[in-house]
Amino acid sequence: MTDQEKKYDVITYGRSSIDLYSQKVGSRFEEIPGFHAFVGGSPLNIAVGCSRLGLKASLLSGVGKDKVGDFLIHFLEEEKVITENVPVIEGARTSAVLLGIEPPDRFPLVYYRDNCADSQINIDHVLNAGIEKSRLLEVSGTALNIEPTRSAAFLAAEIARKNEIPVMLDLDFRADQWYDIRAFGITTRAFMRNVNIVLGTEEEILAAFLADKSQLVISHQQISAPEIKGDIDEAIRGILQLGVDALIVKTGSRGAVVYLPDGTVQKVPGFPVEVVNILGAGDAFAAGFIYGYLKGWDWYKCCRMGNACGAHVVTQLGCANFTPYEKEILAFIESRGGF
Amino acid sequence: MTDQEKKYDVITYGRSSIDLYSQKVGSRFEEIPGFHAFVGGSPLNIAVGCSRLGLKASLLSGVGKDKVGDFLIHFLEEEKVITENVPVIEGARTSAVLLGIEPPDRFPLVYYRDNCADSQINIDHVLNAGIEKSRLLEVSGTALNIEPTRSAAFLAAEIARKNEIPVMLDLDFRADQWYDIRAFGITTRAFMRNVNIVLGTEEEILAAFLADKSQLVISHQQISAPEIKGDIDEAIRGILQLGVDALIVKTGSRGAVVYLPDGTVQKVPGFPVEVVNILGAGDAFAAGFIYGYLKGWDWYKCCRMGNACGAHVVTQLGCANFTPYEKEILAFIESRGGF
Amino acid sequence: MTDQEKKYDVITYGRSSIDLYSQKVGSRFEEIPGFHAFVGGSPLNIAVGCSRLGLKASLLSGVGKDKVGDFLIHFLEEEKVITENVPVIEGARTSAVLLGIEPPDRFPLVYYRDNCADSQINIDHVLNAGIEKSRLLEVSGTALNIEPTRSAAFLAAEIARKNEIPVMLDLDFRADQWYDIRAFGITTRAFMRNVNIVLGTEEEILAAFLADKSQLVISHQQISAPEIKGDIDEAIRGILQLGVDALIVKTGSRGAVVYLPDGTVQKVPGFPVEVVNILGAGDAFAAGFIYGYLKGWDWYKCCRMGNACGAHVVTQLGCANFTPYEKEILAFIESRGGF
Amino acid sequence: MTDQEKKYDVITYGRSSIDLYSQKVGSRFEEIPGFHAFVGGSPLNIAVGCSRLGLKASLLSGVGKDKVGDFLIHFLEEEKVITENVPVIEGARTSAVLLGIEPPDRFPLVYYRDNCADSQINIDHVLNAGIEKSRLLEVSGTALNIEPTRSAAFLAAEIARKNEIPVMLDLDFRADQWYDIRAFGITTRAFMRNVNIVLGTEEEILAAFLADKSQLVISHQQISAPEIKGDIDEAIRGILQLGVDALIVKTGSRGAVVYLPDGTVQKVPGFPVEVVNILGAGDAFAAGFIYGYLKGWDWYKCCRMGNACGAHVVTQLGCANFTPYEKEILAFIESRGGF
Repeated sequence: MTDQEKKYDVITYGRSSIDLYSQKVGSRFEEIPGFHAFVGGSPLNIAVGCSRLGLKASLLSGVGKDKVGDFLIHFLEEEKVITENVPVIEGARTSAVLLGIEPPDRFPLVYYRDNCADSQINIDHVLNAGIEKSRLLEVSGTALNIEPTRSAAFLAAEIARKNEIPVMLDLDFRADQWYDIRAFGITTRAFMRNVNIVLGTEEEILAAFLADKSQLVISHQQISAPEIKGDIDEAIRGILQLGVDALIVKTGSRGAVVYLPDGTVQKVPGFPVEVVNILGAGDAFAAGFIYGYLKGWDWYKCCRMGNACGAHVVTQLGCANFTPYEKEILAFIESRGGF
Repeated sequence: MTDQEKKYDVITYGRSSIDLYSQKVGSRFEEIPGFHAFVGGSPLNIAVGCSRLGLKASLLSGVGKDKVGDFLIHFLEEEKVITENVPVIEGARTSAVLLGIEPPDRFPLVYYRDNCADSQINIDHVLNAGIEKSRLLEVSGTALNIEPTRSAAFLAAEIARKNEIPVMLDLDFRADQWYDIRAFGITTRAFMRNVNIVLGTEEEILAAFLADKSQLVISHQQISAPEIKGDIDEAIRGILQLGVDALIVKTGSRGAVVYLPDGTVQKVPGFPVEVVNILGAGDAFAAGFIYGYLKGWDWYKCCRMGNACGAHVVTQLGCANFTPYEKEILAFIESRGGF
Repeated sequence: MTDQEKKYDVITYGRSSIDLYSQKVGSRFEEIPGFHAFVGGSPLNIAVGCSRLGLKASLLSGVGKDKVGDFLIHFLEEEKVITENVPVIEGARTSAVLLGIEPPDRFPLVYYRDNCADSQINIDHVLNAGIEKSRLLEVSGTALNIEPTRSAAFLAAEIARKNEIPVMLDLDFRADQWYDIRAFGITTRAFMRNVNIVLGTEEEILAAFLADKSQLVISHQQISAPEIKGDIDEAIRGILQLGVDALIVKTGSRGAVVYLPDGTVQKVPGFPVEVVNILGAGDAFAAGFIYGYLKGWDWYKCCRMGNACGAHVVTQLGCANFTPYEKEILAFIESRGGF
Repeated sequence: MTDQEKKYDVITYGRSSIDLYSQKVGSRFEEIPGFHAFVGGSPLNIAVGCSRLGLKASLLSGVGKDKVGDFLIHFLEEEKVITENVPVIEGARTSAVLLGIEPPDRFPLVYYRDNCADSQINIDHVLNAGIEKSRLLEVSGTALNIEPTRSAAFLAAEIARKNEIPVMLDLDFRADQWYDIRAFGITTRAFMRNVNIVLGTEEEILAAFLADKSQLVISHQQISAPEIKGDIDEAIRGILQLGVDALIVKTGSRGAVVYLPDGTVQKVPGFPVEVVNILGAGDAFAAGFIYGYLKGWDWYKCCRMGNACGAHVVTQLGCANFTPYEKEILAFIESRGGF
């Protein structure tokens, strides 16, 4: 199957949720008067981001038989994300997240993921998803936390590799979603054997090699921004030894760094903007990166595109809802001096 | 212990949640732009309602170790509800509810109650709650749906009865919170053996005698407003035979009806108002009823007070957040011709 | 329906298991060379006991889709116990028990009851069991420990009462089968509201009023013989106040004691025999008692019949496998001076 | 650390149980009069087998706080297996298995493994097990079926590889221990990335590549002897491509076959004996093989030793209880013409 014949440019696998963002920036959580109704979940955000960039993006996730599920599907369809791989799971609930916004440094998250639908993606869903018809498979690390999604995700990566489809893992470390935080590293390290590109923040890369629970500290319920102790160089080497093509480290306003197994290290500068909310920036980066990767761009240019998309999102309150469209982001890059 | 010496006027037992109300009345759920952050859960609403009416009200419920829990506790403390019986439950999550508002007849509800904190109230929590120091115990039917709250609630009622403290059961039928909807009736019927006053809508009373699953229909995910087939007269007789002092049937704008074991039936008219949202009206009724009951009023006057409180809430969007204060509701009744 | 028209004389509800008895009496558990393959579970034992006494006995229990289930069904059919109410439960396992025999005072029990089939008896099984066609319903206290069997058992008792069928509760306290040992008492006390006859040992009656976990001590994993502190007189009064017709306390070799709500206390002497193994004696007692009760005998004579059956079983190693036949037990009583 | 300084020759990881063998060979399960009390579980059997052959063998497994756990520990200590890595797990139960013996072709198995202790081996147990002090790590495929043992086993293999300790995987396929039988292959294939030697029957190797549930048929509850359709050559190639040093296929009375990544295929003949019971033969093979492997023997001689041990066990009723001692098995091989 040639790329032109492929049904999907990208399948993103894992979390999807209604994301409820505090409407009062700076308010203590206890006093939030209301929430904007957005959507979220790393793979959902990336699918929307890719779709806005013009790619045929399919989300592989699950929703419950509930109105929140209808809300997600409605949004995805508006965004032209292909939803045929988002089954309605009987007896499970669509994920939800509540987010407080207290810049500069407090963004508490409350996950509603007990018995959630996107964890119920199973082997049959994967077999029916047509992974062999996609040009790339992107998997979220949280999709590996419990069964049945865990085995199903391992199978998805195997199918991709057998069909010579590149696999990207976004580490997506959410500490409270693992029965033992060290299981995150054990499981993602096993998974990386079938991965081409690993994406993560420095904290997430450290989390993938966490040996001692006391290395992790989470303050103010900021699940997406843990503090983790460890040796980042050793962790990076550890990942590169697992057979990946590249490790991309997202370093926030500083841009991204590419690490290759041959020892190459390449810093890719970001685009300076005024930060309103960093949530979703990493997913916008991933979408931009995938856009470039599928065009055959080199690592540097892929990351520049990712950085631009990330920069666009941090100026807004929300994730998928404010990821950029192809024309506007290319114009933005142009306006900032180009790639 | 005399009533004056009692620490609490009322303990309400069961659900507590953040209630997220659609900010766009009439909007399809799929297109809701945002949600007001209120609080809810029948026993929480009743506790707030009682507190605003001047009673010493203690909620017996649970919150997770999360920011939503902080949100609830903060609200309760602002409302002067006694929170010493709302423990933080490790490993569980504070309940949440999302509500769509599509008058006149669609109010879909999405409950986030898997592994929720208020279901983790246990025997020790009840033993430590000081039920013997309260003048009344109010229990929500949903608190009987799973362990450990179920056994704990049965124990709470036993302790109350042993100490000659009246027990009120608000049926609070939420179909999707039971593994088998018929277990609702089986369990509440067993519970009623230790109950003095049963409160419910006609649908809830029918639900308490549901023999066949097909008798229940829920449309548009309106969990709080199921359609149920059955013989209401037989159901009322069934409850009266279990040894209760009175059954109070809430009949919406028509007011309430009192049924007594001796065959007495007494209709208590409501107060006509313009309805914005019926959610929370039943809990306001319960608070008003309890207010009167603890003053020693007769059934009729208790229900009139309940009707007034319910009428007040239906003109607003929200539950506990808009339950009336003592002075304003007494003035309202006065202005409408008195009890 | 007259008694003659009834399909069953007795339905017994609850546990059923393969009981594996040490083949080396006196051996430490660690050195047991082999186990006799018997059957057990209080309601199964009682059903077999009743059948051997000539009654039409139906067991209401569950087996897994496994060879141990086949073993149980085969045994029951050999014993002419009606098995139509013993469904095969997909995804659950037939219960098993391993028993050490170290007379005079150590009989350790190891229960294999996680995800067991007899706990999966549900509301539909009860509705289909034809309880209204039985002359008596016997329920085991362990059948109340978890859902779905608990709600189903409460429903069974309700159906019996509505049809004026006497309900017998054998307390059957097995401490390790309850998430909190105090839930045993809370639940059985609620259940007794629909019970005519309560059967138990002194330890079980104390367990039904356990307020503090430290009151219970289990040594050498003797689940069926806990030591419990408490006030037995108060506990007996507590049960009699719940509306039962009679409380029968099994006192081992000393026989039984009948307690009635009117204050009557009647001691019924046992039959002195040489004790090999006390397991199963209580169930044989229950079978004998039911035999007499259905004949319309008075409490004394019912208990004498029960005592005789119990005495017969303690001379043997096993429960249901050695419960007496009608002729032999009547001859035994005759030989010991009659009722 | 040199081999001489190592604390253990081998750590075996996974199942341990009381194995209850029918005492009446040929009896239908329904009519079994009693059971011999043996022990079992592939890793336990291999540990005992290794210990009898003179190796320092440590079992890494778990037992419940129950008499069956005492039974296992007692047996292991008698056999000089090192038990310091067999923790007592609170709240879990020691595994049990009931086995029918109906030669020539029916050996039904009933596993009691719901909430079993050996599935509760966790990351801390593995970190404390001193894997780096062992000369070899043997892992059972069933130890990968659920959390926490699964993550813990993946970590164990990682630790071994980092310390250049060879890892052997015995596929140990038990279909009813997986929520989806295809998860067995997905998980073991991921695990094999850190494995040196894979051991299995042809059925188990097919199971590791099962794509369609209908390929598997289990008759007469013979969990250890499923029939599986598939392409065995493709499956063997699939395993060899995952980076293992060798795949050893156990072919019963025909002996074993060695497959190497370079395409080498070597058949190693067995020792003809009269078969009483094939259960445990594979584990005895593994023990013999490990014995040879740690002596530095070539694949052929390792397998011959394994074949001899297997042949010894099939003449007996039981697994670990009848695995051979070093001297007797070397004498047996000598008597049959040597390696």
